[in-house]
Amino acid sequence: MVNFDDFSRLELRTGKIMEVESHPDAEKLFVLKVNIGEKAIQLVAGIKPFYSSQELIGKSIVVLVNLEPKDIRGVRSEGMLLAAQAKDDVSLIVPNKDVPEGTIIR
Amino acid sequence: MVNFDDFSRLELRTGKIMEVESHPDAEKLFVLKVNIGEKAIQLVAGIKPFYSSQELIGKSIVVLVNLEPKDIRGVRSEGMLLAAQAKDDVSLIVPNKDVPEGTIIR
Repeated sequence: MVNFDDFSRLELRTGKIMEVESHPDAEKLFVLKVNIGEKAIQLVAGIKPFYSSQELIGKSIVVLVNLEPKDIRGVRSEGMLLAAQAKDDVSLIVPNKDVPEGTIIR
Repeated sequence: MVNFDDFSRLELRTGKIMEVESHPDAEKLFVLKVNIGEKAIQLVAGIKPFYSSQELIGKSIVVLVNLEPKDIRGVRSEGMLLAAQAKDDVSLIVPNKDVPEGTIIR
């Protein structure tokens, strides 16, 4: 069990995917540039088997923005996008309505 | 900043809204019954000004399922749904594809 403070330490915000590139060294990873309101961040995400680059560009997603940055196979990831991990598929988690980039999620 | 362990303590899952009732004692609150896979839970959520009951029934959402239960104006809430809190609107956070209820989110 967690309490509300545990949850509110996480800064979850909407973001819009601006650019998509293949990771130079990992066939299942994309390197994304995501606008999270006041700035753009770079994310490494293992969604390449489940989404095309074309599907991703312009899409609004949900990002954990205050996660410690980490190098994933040599490429910096400055946060993490949220996705539902089904048995044979991965689904991005998205806002149901059009809201500005950087909108806080609670 | 948070680390991945802080995030993974939170059990976020997809859920499907099965029933919607007005909270008996608060005009902005709905009381929802949500199927989260192996069971159904009751959630109290302040989304009544932003969604109709009809829009909500059958909708897939994202739920923090291991949040300590809490009484909200006398009605038990056994978790929390995620929503983007824009200036004048609230948007539910939803899976982008059709995935089974109870699918874990990471």
